Amino acid sequence: MGDHDIHPSVTEIAEDIAEMEIRGAATIADATARALAEQAAGSDAATPEAFESELRDAARRLLDTRPTAVSLPNSLRYVLQRTEGETVEELRESAVAGAREFRDRLDSAQTDLGSIGANRLRDGDTVLFHCHSTDVMACIRAAREQGKSIDAIVKETRPRRQGHITAKQLRELGVSVTLIVDGAAGRYLGDADHVFVGADSVTADGSVVNKIGTRQLAVTARERDTPIVVAAQTLKLDPTTLTGQTVEIEMREESEVLSEGDRAEIGDITVENPAFDVTPPRYVDAIVTERGQFPPESIVFLMRELFGEQASQPWEE
Amino acid sequence: MGDHDIHPSVTEIAEDIAEMEIRGAATIADATARALAEQAAGSDAATPEAFESELRDAARRLLDTRPTAVSLPNSLRYVLQRTEGETVEELRESAVAGAREFRDRLDSAQTDLGSIGANRLRDGDTVLFHCHSTDVMACIRAAREQGKSIDAIVKETRPRRQGHITAKQLRELGVSVTLIVDGAAGRYLGDADHVFVGADSVTADGSVVNKIGTRQLAVTARERDTPIVVAAQTLKLDPTTLTGQTVEIEMREESEVLSEGDRAEIGDITVENPAFDVTPPRYVDAIVTERGQFPPESIVFLMRELFGEQASQPWEE
Amino acid sequence: MGDHDIHPSVTEIAEDIAEMEIRGAATIADATARALAEQAAGSDAATPEAFESELRDAARRLLDTRPTAVSLPNSLRYVLQRTEGETVEELRESAVAGAREFRDRLDSAQTDLGSIGANRLRDGDTVLFHCHSTDVMACIRAAREQGKSIDAIVKETRPRRQGHITAKQLRELGVSVTLIVDGAAGRYLGDADHVFVGADSVTADGSVVNKIGTRQLAVTARERDTPIVVAAQTLKLDPTTLTGQTVEIEMREESEVLSEGDRAEIGDITVENPAFDVTPPRYVDAIVTERGQFPPESIVFLMRELFGEQASQPWEE
Amino acid sequence: MGDHDIHPSVTEIAEDIAEMEIRGAATIADATARALAEQAAGSDAATPEAFESELRDAARRLLDTRPTAVSLPNSLRYVLQRTEGETVEELRESAVAGAREFRDRLDSAQTDLGSIGANRLRDGDTVLFHCHSTDVMACIRAAREQGKSIDAIVKETRPRRQGHITAKQLRELGVSVTLIVDGAAGRYLGDADHVFVGADSVTADGSVVNKIGTRQLAVTARERDTPIVVAAQTLKLDPTTLTGQTVEIEMREESEVLSEGDRAEIGDITVENPAFDVTPPRYVDAIVTERGQFPPESIVFLMRELFGEQASQPWEE
Amino acid sequence: MGDHDIHPSVTEIAEDIAEMEIRGAATIADATARALAEQAAGSDAATPEAFESELRDAARRLLDTRPTAVSLPNSLRYVLQRTEGETVEELRESAVAGAREFRDRLDSAQTDLGSIGANRLRDGDTVLFHCHSTDVMACIRAAREQGKSIDAIVKETRPRRQGHITAKQLRELGVSVTLIVDGAAGRYLGDADHVFVGADSVTADGSVVNKIGTRQLAVTARERDTPIVVAAQTLKLDPTTLTGQTVEIEMREESEVLSEGDRAEIGDITVENPAFDVTPPRYVDAIVTERGQFPPESIVFLMRELFGEQASQPWEE
Amino acid sequence: MGDHDIHPSVTEIAEDIAEMEIRGAATIADATARALAEQAAGSDAATPEAFESELRDAARRLLDTRPTAVSLPNSLRYVLQRTEGETVEELRESAVAGAREFRDRLDSAQTDLGSIGANRLRDGDTVLFHCHSTDVMACIRAAREQGKSIDAIVKETRPRRQGHITAKQLRELGVSVTLIVDGAAGRYLGDADHVFVGADSVTADGSVVNKIGTRQLAVTARERDTPIVVAAQTLKLDPTTLTGQTVEIEMREESEVLSEGDRAEIGDITVENPAFDVTPPRYVDAIVTERGQFPPESIVFLMRELFGEQASQPWEE
Repeated sequence: MGDHDIHPSVTEIAEDIAEMEIRGAATIADATARALAEQAAGSDAATPEAFESELRDAARRLLDTRPTAVSLPNSLRYVLQRTEGETVEELRESAVAGAREFRDRLDSAQTDLGSIGANRLRDGDTVLFHCHSTDVMACIRAAREQGKSIDAIVKETRPRRQGHITAKQLRELGVSVTLIVDGAAGRYLGDADHVFVGADSVTADGSVVNKIGTRQLAVTARERDTPIVVAAQTLKLDPTTLTGQTVEIEMREESEVLSEGDRAEIGDITVENPAFDVTPPRYVDAIVTERGQFPPESIVFLMRELFGEQASQPWEE
Repeated sequence: MGDHDIHPSVTEIAEDIAEMEIRGAATIADATARALAEQAAGSDAATPEAFESELRDAARRLLDTRPTAVSLPNSLRYVLQRTEGETVEELRESAVAGAREFRDRLDSAQTDLGSIGANRLRDGDTVLFHCHSTDVMACIRAAREQGKSIDAIVKETRPRRQGHITAKQLRELGVSVTLIVDGAAGRYLGDADHVFVGADSVTADGSVVNKIGTRQLAVTARERDTPIVVAAQTLKLDPTTLTGQTVEIEMREESEVLSEGDRAEIGDITVENPAFDVTPPRYVDAIVTERGQFPPESIVFLMRELFGEQASQPWEE
Repeated sequence: MGDHDIHPSVTEIAEDIAEMEIRGAATIADATARALAEQAAGSDAATPEAFESELRDAARRLLDTRPTAVSLPNSLRYVLQRTEGETVEELRESAVAGAREFRDRLDSAQTDLGSIGANRLRDGDTVLFHCHSTDVMACIRAAREQGKSIDAIVKETRPRRQGHITAKQLRELGVSVTLIVDGAAGRYLGDADHVFVGADSVTADGSVVNKIGTRQLAVTARERDTPIVVAAQTLKLDPTTLTGQTVEIEMREESEVLSEGDRAEIGDITVENPAFDVTPPRYVDAIVTERGQFPPESIVFLMRELFGEQASQPWEE
Repeated sequence: MGDHDIHPSVTEIAEDIAEMEIRGAATIADATARALAEQAAGSDAATPEAFESELRDAARRLLDTRPTAVSLPNSLRYVLQRTEGETVEELRESAVAGAREFRDRLDSAQTDLGSIGANRLRDGDTVLFHCHSTDVMACIRAAREQGKSIDAIVKETRPRRQGHITAKQLRELGVSVTLIVDGAAGRYLGDADHVFVGADSVTADGSVVNKIGTRQLAVTARERDTPIVVAAQTLKLDPTTLTGQTVEIEMREESEVLSEGDRAEIGDITVENPAFDVTPPRYVDAIVTERGQFPPESIVFLMRELFGEQASQPWEE
Repeated sequence: MGDHDIHPSVTEIAEDIAEMEIRGAATIADATARALAEQAAGSDAATPEAFESELRDAARRLLDTRPTAVSLPNSLRYVLQRTEGETVEELRESAVAGAREFRDRLDSAQTDLGSIGANRLRDGDTVLFHCHSTDVMACIRAAREQGKSIDAIVKETRPRRQGHITAKQLRELGVSVTLIVDGAAGRYLGDADHVFVGADSVTADGSVVNKIGTRQLAVTARERDTPIVVAAQTLKLDPTTLTGQTVEIEMREESEVLSEGDRAEIGDITVENPAFDVTPPRYVDAIVTERGQFPPESIVFLMRELFGEQASQPWEE
Repeated sequence: MGDHDIHPSVTEIAEDIAEMEIRGAATIADATARALAEQAAGSDAATPEAFESELRDAARRLLDTRPTAVSLPNSLRYVLQRTEGETVEELRESAVAGAREFRDRLDSAQTDLGSIGANRLRDGDTVLFHCHSTDVMACIRAAREQGKSIDAIVKETRPRRQGHITAKQLRELGVSVTLIVDGAAGRYLGDADHVFVGADSVTADGSVVNKIGTRQLAVTARERDTPIVVAAQTLKLDPTTLTGQTVEIEMREESEVLSEGDRAEIGDITVENPAFDVTPPRYVDAIVTERGQFPPESIVFLMRELFGEQASQPWEE
């Protein structure tokens, strides 16, 4: 079965994920579920087998865009496991319903997480931010709704400077913002009461995979005794790591780091542009999820509670 | 006495220093000495007093450009202390000779330092670089002349990306270069045998003032057990710190961090752009100078050997 | 409904808790349950609603005395959740029975905890103590009953010097005691095989809230490689922290720290007298409860096992 | 009841365990189960009581050989808990069946563990080994079967140099081996991507009891930021530590350390030859079991899942 | 020669030192020099030998009062080394002159030290204090004279609560003061920009002997990344440690820690009341002396500069 | 000029050094000086040039035996720098005298060092030893002569087990000895008051090059807060490191680690047998020399005092 039966929305969403037009794990998971719903709703498959095959093809197409975005397979897993029926129509309806349910759950997850994260903040606290994370933003939004005044120090987060997005959204929440370059964090950590970062994924040994720069920030934050909080929906827990799988780090395009002009000027060099790095649990104080907060060393039991000892992969035949 | 007697070369060099057209402490020190020589050579002062006053004015003009660049006052101190004589002509000649001597000494200092730093490197080593330092480059140049093959990992070093200059010069020395964003150092330190950084100044308590980002890098390097070497001519030793003076950190323009367009997009935020940060001695393995290498905790004795317990400030009347 | 229906025993116990006449979390919890039992037994409420309202009023009255004493709401929660019935009489009986059951459970809890803590001790060990904790005393009592000889180093624990109580009780158990000022712990940790402290509460992220001075002691104990054990019944686990709530630290009266005479002598100063501080889990080796011992990073799962993901607050209407 | 009814196989296996002819926890557990099976199969007990008494005697005989080998009581516990019946014949059959089942489970446990541990390794990684562990070997075997190339650095592991066994088996798996003395690990950790060690037992507070030298290796590995993985079947989890029991460290014969000749030469000295030491959880990155991998701080919950809060001791009457 | 020739002033000053009526190393050194001057001025010795013998007796009498107060022998050494002459009159005059010179030097030493220490402070800084030190007070006085606003956190410093003296003097300097118990420092270090402590003596290996509690404070300050400064005149450098001598720690009276009444209440216990503890150099950022500031690891060279490799002991015959 | 004029004693001593018949830096230095004296005394050179050439040849022959034994070139440097004269006879006499002087100085150096090191020890202390060092033994001998009782824990120190020599000599000094394998140090450091090790050489950046296993021991000693003392005559200070030269680590024969029989059993493996490793200064508390004790970070100034900024190499023509 080829790609020709993949719905244009799936292709479009897949491209947007690859291009980082769609970014942030929750947004990706949401878009992924939406894509499967569109695929299901728009399918003209003649047989249940054809329908399922199309859906799996769409799942794999989406899966290929961001190998390290753990929310993506978790989203696919959720919808495909709920796609059941004897007829094409039954399959279609259950897939669409599964996708809707998943997206609803996603909405309340972020709100719940936000309120838990906000509880860690006191009125007048200063928080240092790295990159942009909708889970982190949910914590700040909830803190603001609780009436707390928050000051922000935002690292610009090269190469894509997602710190600018964070800065803009914080301004919209009425948070005063100081923007710094990434290297300046060592100096400004002394002014921060907390570091809040998101996560691309969290592994069974308690490590946090997040935007490049997180490990260095966390090591320095520990050295300065500033607590570091990871805000991560349970969607980011990577069940494959329960059995020891390591997380492959996405390498992104050189052009994010170096323009053509700069390269011409410098000469023949290599650019390494890993999207993420891995922070060991000993540098993280708490992982805040929609199910409560946890020391990173104990997250493995939440993972087992949610996924069992091993997670199936329903996009394989 | 006003500024109207300041030689155009002094003004030009002062501006170039302020604009960072002239950068790197040795280059600044060299230019400063040259400026004083031009001032002296071009002076049409009628009296020895007028000559000395002009020279002090020029010194103060230069001093104002970069308050944290310790090599600048050390350079002025060297020339002014050697400006002696009964007549304008004698003063002029001694000033010009002092400046020449200082600049000669500067040349051999960097070569000597380079050869000492190079001795720490083995054939095939990988070195991680932050910012750009001519003292560091001298070490690599000497290592290459010793026939050692060196691989480089270069942090781009926001906001001004002086890492690009480092990368370009390393390429010219036949060093293979991998460029990374600043946040990626945590990940690539595991591949490095050494970190080499320069210094803006070194204080009596063994702290290293260097380009923003150094402290975070040094803390993480220690955590990964990668030795960190500071290459700094004795010109960078700050004698005022012997008596407890702290180093004022230059705050640079916001526009280096954030373009007008980005600011318009983000909204009303503060940008903090400190040029340097301070690394405590416990995160530095050795300071390499032209007078040998030293643990940072012992540099105070080299400082006392060179400057005595207190350094005079000959630009004050 | 006003306070006029609150039983005198409740008022008396509340005052004793506030005055620290009643201190130690288990003793507070016991007294709290007893107070509710007295309130229930002595109530002449005409209606079930009136009875329940009185009981909630009594609960809130008790709750106000020590906001950080987590055993207090846990005790209230236990009794109120078991107060059920259609008639005043049924309500009364169930409340009294619930309080009795709770107090029985409390008794065996301490014994069980003591025996687990004692198992960590070997014959001839020296233990260093901070403040006074009945849970800690239970461990030593059990160790003594196991026939183990124990030597004690006791910090006096300013400002209230509860170390004196510890010293006295240890003497009664046949333990030889050396008393030191708080600052001397750094020196005497080298002579200790263990540090044993209690807890005011334990949070979901594994932090231990305990008598002021604990954090400093734990940091220094880790630096000297002396294991630090926290003895804390599960009653001290704070279920509100599962959702990120932070623990408010009680500030106590200045007069505990500074007499009127001393203040007159010194002049106009501020006295800060926080009752507790917060020790992160990385400085604690084990938390010993009546349900077994746990690394602090895993205590969140015991908390969830006992209280679910969220704990209700039955004193709210 | 005396020892005269103990089956010769039991005696022989007990002796082999004591002599370390049988070593490695899984091998010991397997041999123990086999010994009980032989005892059961060969028994000519006249009554069920006599049969059970014989079995308990055999269990105690085996238990005495290696007090710290936790797999041994866990193996006995498994078989004795499954030995049920009204008649001698029923008891015999159930004991034999229980032993068989246990040994089957043991086989797959090691394979499962091996595949999880292997997932942590990447093609081309270098692993540093201490002592010899069949659980660790299972990880390497699985990695080789996954087609990964592995380089090994093997500490000889005085006094018995079980590193030689590890080296030999690694060679048979096609792994290139570098052998070093124990003291050289500090130098060679910089060349290793992982440290893999086994465990004699794992305690409820997350400590790892393993061959003498492990603690020093783990502390140094942390200082050099080399991750340390403990491969340990759940058979090694010591349920008695849930209630605070400490692990007694076996002291072995002096002759392992010092020959008669050397002693004669040196004179009157004491030799201390502890078989194991205890590594706190903060120096271990992950414990790999057949049930998944865990941070050491969370292993207590796996222990409780498997054994409950307290483990019975069926060899006591 | 007996004690009957010792001048009453010597006896009185010796008693005041022993009773801690005279405390603080500079004050002790000053009083010691004054005592020797009184002894010399008031002597009616018939021969130069008798005079010298009396002076040595006086020196030994003073020396016995506080074995760990290094300023005391340094003060004696200074005066005795300058006591020269052929006649009693010459000896008397030179002794009196030497004492005067020493005391003058002492005065300017503290002022010079104060100004160096003050240079480390910025306007608006918060400083945390332990015990009472006139060298530390000199730093704050100088900072106030430089027009800097300083906030203070003062540990009461059991057992003698010299923190009260510090608090009172800080108030007189216009510094706002917050008083805390010793155990609260762990919590308030986060609010402090610096820790300033004095020293009883400083040893050749860079260790700082100071009031009990310093080590614990310094370890915790390092863990919270608060810089710790030791203010100590060179008079506190202990030249005997150049040759490895260790510092004996004075044990003071139990009654400072425990009143008779409290002891009667508690029962038969030991009280340990060491006056000082030893802080290794790795927990100290700088030692501020009147000769400049130094990392503790380099102070050995200042010691050798001042005293040579070995210091004579002129009170021995 | 060939090797045929080298004196048989030189050849013999060179061989004994290479074979480690002569070991310990002081013994090597002594033998080296003796060899040069024999060469000088036995020379029948016809001309001063021939004599000098022979002496340099002998020096180079000796230098080749142990490239890392820094005392060897320091010994040669001492004798050759003092070999002066116009005639063969004058040269001969000055060489012999220089060698005698050097050896005398060597004798008192060890005694002086021993007495300084002994001053750090208190009566009843337990010291942990690694390898064998005559400088360390001198400290213990002096402590015993001071009447102090010392207990010893001795690591056997694979591969050559020089710990056996240490154990034997300690017994002869009346020290009670406990022998352990190298891996057991982590466990026994808790029983030790000090670690004493020697040094093969000490570098300008404060690193200590010593018998393989020192670094691991020092890291673990720091983690357990046991002070580590390096006993090293100034002869061990390596002046070439002042200009950044790194120390080459001698690789010794495989047969020290693995017998032919064991290798045949294990199969085709590599054995790495480095003689030494490098311990950074942050893990060492003090370096005890005959010139006093020093924090390792300050030893560079002793090195400069003794050798100047650069040391000449008189064996080069």
